[in-house]
Amino acid sequence: MRVTVRDIAGVVGGSIIGDADQLVTGISSLTEAASGDISFLANPKYAPYLAETKATAVLVASAQETGRPIPVQIVVANPDFAFATVVATFGPKAVPPPTGVHPTAIVGERVRLGSGVAIGAYVVIGDDAQIGEQTVLYPHVYVGNEARIGANCLIYPQVSIRERCRLGDRVIIHPGAVVGSDGFGYATVEGVHHKIPQVGVVIVEDDVEIGANTTIDRARFGKTSIGKGTKIDNLVQIAHNVEIGRHCFLVSQAGVAGSTRLGNHVTLAGQCGLAGHLTIGDQAVVTGQSGVSKSVPPKMVVRGSPAQEFKTAQATEIAVRRLPNTQAQVKDLLARVAELEKRLALLQAKP
Amino acid sequence: MRVTVRDIAGVVGGSIIGDADQLVTGISSLTEAASGDISFLANPKYAPYLAETKATAVLVASAQETGRPIPVQIVVANPDFAFATVVATFGPKAVPPPTGVHPTAIVGERVRLGSGVAIGAYVVIGDDAQIGEQTVLYPHVYVGNEARIGANCLIYPQVSIRERCRLGDRVIIHPGAVVGSDGFGYATVEGVHHKIPQVGVVIVEDDVEIGANTTIDRARFGKTSIGKGTKIDNLVQIAHNVEIGRHCFLVSQAGVAGSTRLGNHVTLAGQCGLAGHLTIGDQAVVTGQSGVSKSVPPKMVVRGSPAQEFKTAQATEIAVRRLPNTQAQVKDLLARVAELEKRLALLQAKP
Amino acid sequence: MRVTVRDIAGVVGGSIIGDADQLVTGISSLTEAASGDISFLANPKYAPYLAETKATAVLVASAQETGRPIPVQIVVANPDFAFATVVATFGPKAVPPPTGVHPTAIVGERVRLGSGVAIGAYVVIGDDAQIGEQTVLYPHVYVGNEARIGANCLIYPQVSIRERCRLGDRVIIHPGAVVGSDGFGYATVEGVHHKIPQVGVVIVEDDVEIGANTTIDRARFGKTSIGKGTKIDNLVQIAHNVEIGRHCFLVSQAGVAGSTRLGNHVTLAGQCGLAGHLTIGDQAVVTGQSGVSKSVPPKMVVRGSPAQEFKTAQATEIAVRRLPNTQAQVKDLLARVAELEKRLALLQAKP
Repeated sequence: MRVTVRDIAGVVGGSIIGDADQLVTGISSLTEAASGDISFLANPKYAPYLAETKATAVLVASAQETGRPIPVQIVVANPDFAFATVVATFGPKAVPPPTGVHPTAIVGERVRLGSGVAIGAYVVIGDDAQIGEQTVLYPHVYVGNEARIGANCLIYPQVSIRERCRLGDRVIIHPGAVVGSDGFGYATVEGVHHKIPQVGVVIVEDDVEIGANTTIDRARFGKTSIGKGTKIDNLVQIAHNVEIGRHCFLVSQAGVAGSTRLGNHVTLAGQCGLAGHLTIGDQAVVTGQSGVSKSVPPKMVVRGSPAQEFKTAQATEIAVRRLPNTQAQVKDLLARVAELEKRLALLQAKP
Repeated sequence: MRVTVRDIAGVVGGSIIGDADQLVTGISSLTEAASGDISFLANPKYAPYLAETKATAVLVASAQETGRPIPVQIVVANPDFAFATVVATFGPKAVPPPTGVHPTAIVGERVRLGSGVAIGAYVVIGDDAQIGEQTVLYPHVYVGNEARIGANCLIYPQVSIRERCRLGDRVIIHPGAVVGSDGFGYATVEGVHHKIPQVGVVIVEDDVEIGANTTIDRARFGKTSIGKGTKIDNLVQIAHNVEIGRHCFLVSQAGVAGSTRLGNHVTLAGQCGLAGHLTIGDQAVVTGQSGVSKSVPPKMVVRGSPAQEFKTAQATEIAVRRLPNTQAQVKDLLARVAELEKRLALLQAKP
Repeated sequence: MRVTVRDIAGVVGGSIIGDADQLVTGISSLTEAASGDISFLANPKYAPYLAETKATAVLVASAQETGRPIPVQIVVANPDFAFATVVATFGPKAVPPPTGVHPTAIVGERVRLGSGVAIGAYVVIGDDAQIGEQTVLYPHVYVGNEARIGANCLIYPQVSIRERCRLGDRVIIHPGAVVGSDGFGYATVEGVHHKIPQVGVVIVEDDVEIGANTTIDRARFGKTSIGKGTKIDNLVQIAHNVEIGRHCFLVSQAGVAGSTRLGNHVTLAGQCGLAGHLTIGDQAVVTGQSGVSKSVPPKMVVRGSPAQEFKTAQATEIAVRRLPNTQAQVKDLLARVAELEKRLALLQAKP
């Protein structure tokens, strides 16, 4: 890339503080930037890096006092988003996905392929499946019978989408993810586990993204569902009959047990676990590694294992850290009270 | 489906309370049921839903007082199990697995295939492997040299079974699972890690089920083993030389470190972790997210990280929740004891 | 195998205590050994097993008092390492990997293949990729455009290496692992998550090993990097822009959030989680299931969730276990202080 700060400000709709003619030749983070790079400041806690960065330009949410002419500042409403635009516009060109239907792809009977569909080498698509227009299946993808994939989806290598599952439009699934594996359901009779058929499906709505090697089980009956715009990271487990609302975040290695329901705009941070049959309200947040065994009301932030409301959990954590000191105080009190009792007894014994 | 309550009761061997001629046209859970559906009540805590459900019929373990003619009740010994039978008998027909050996399957030299084996597109089977009769390998499965798979197994897409590993009969492995990856073993010499060859195998006994993207490492030497009837959920890690008994449950994202042994009927709940070289007794239960660093005797339930016996752990948790109050009490005591000391000193100082 | 103790001592450079002519016919652990087996004692805590083992020979770090002529002892500097040598020299021969380029492999345009490269069935390699000499790609591997893989690497089945990622020499990647999936990055505008392009790469240096179904995300821009000699277990998550130093251990199910940097010789034990944007110093150790939310200085061992320095964490854990007793003491103190106050008031009220 070889553009001016003015070019960039034009693309992101920002106002410039400094020399608009400075040349930008690369993209980087504040700490890694070299001269010529554009960077961004999204989190105010990194503001001190502005005084040290070698970046030539920086996207900011408001004018920053740095006492330096460089980096030139470009003020925008959302630096994170503007930076994404800069990367998409000026950054390294993405490697183009496969196009056309590769001759080695095996497409079942009565499969409907939309216009512009791309199917990579060694893809296997079962009978009666549907693939929407402009959707790309990378090599080694498996699509089961009667599955339906919407338009403009991106399905990376080695993804399994089992039979009858349905994906909306613009869904992205990263390598190795599994959609529609059997739920973990057994009826135990005299200590022996008998498999309960898992005959439901998984429904993934529009604009969902699913991370690498994440697993989403099909419902026992009915459906496991992921709402529009929800983003799921790598190695997440979603059990059978779970229902996830719209625009949620599920961060890596989180796990949701069977039949739990998440509202909209819920955040599950990394490695947290949710028991089954719970209801998690809209905009609730479960912090990292928390273990949730009770339903969570809307907007509540919970923390800990077992999870409590955030402030309570934090107060408990602080109290625990003070505990060795508390126990020393108790030991001291025990001695002092014993001494008081002795002295008082002596006093009372006085004639 | 379009059957009567009588038809269903006949199949599950239940007795009917109510109108045996009611028509059943669907299958659902109590809360999601519409008129015409059959449902089931397995967990007594959901009994209140019986008063509200729109289901036409319900499988129960004992007659329930609802004051309503609908849902008709079908009393059976195990409603969970009976429901599975209903789903299998009357529910959506499962999509049939592949049949025959697909022309693109690559079968090594001296491979023995049992009668009725089905091998999907792009499956690769190494030399000297054996596949038992009626076993189904879905597309993209990899079977290493000298591996043996029993009869009537179901191996879903993109499963890797590495060389020399052995599976019993009726084993089910879900997409992306890995059996026989190298154990994590190194000899560290002056800070550099040298790989220790992992020349053992994995032995999976009859009726085991292995979840999507679960990983089971081969032994350093000897074997990693999974006992008959054990069911393993998605994204579980089983390290080298682990031995797991019969009829255990390993729930999603649990992890078992090297050389640990589980007895029979052990339950590992979701996201729990077990250190290496431990022994977990028969029927022991490790609750969700627990971290087990010591062996667990038979039938003990453990909880927490580090894990303790359940009641002790629970008492500790309750005590911790009261801790801020305890610390307030201690603060109060410190003031009162100081006051007592002062007053007593004054008294003693009196002539 | 059929060799003498003398043969083995010759290979590992050890000195023999006992009958050098004893015949060794197998390899096993101390507890599982039968007569004829060679075993090893690496961890002193297993020394008592020497008195009971049926092994014929044992590798030890120093002469052990057993009062028995068998097992014959072979004294070596590092029994673990010597045992690995014995396994590699005399143990079961590894199944040879594929050789040559399988006719079904699809190799893109302008791909450079080193001499002696082996490419298994149904491998797909994108345009402009490079594969170093003697490297083996097992069946179903996917290599994206412009990716580079060094010499003498071993890439197991169903691994995805996405476009532009680069691997050094002697890298081993186990089945189902994903290198170069998109980082989890979004700009949220009015509750809707907009994907931030992830245009960076993953750089994996020489001698790295990556476990089954582990996921390593490509950088948002720049690189996610894994330093020379680092060993990563199964189901580990490494987020975008993480930098990992040399000779680290990342044990199964550990997770590292975005932009966190690990120094050299760091150990992350199983199921631990690290927040983003942290710095973990050289030789630091994070124990199992710990949750790290602050940077860790070199050589520090941390434990707990949230993690603290090891001794502090341990003191806190012990304090917590004593807490029910502490609370009983406080209850007792409250009663005794109330009694003291009453008695003192009476005394003071005396004329």
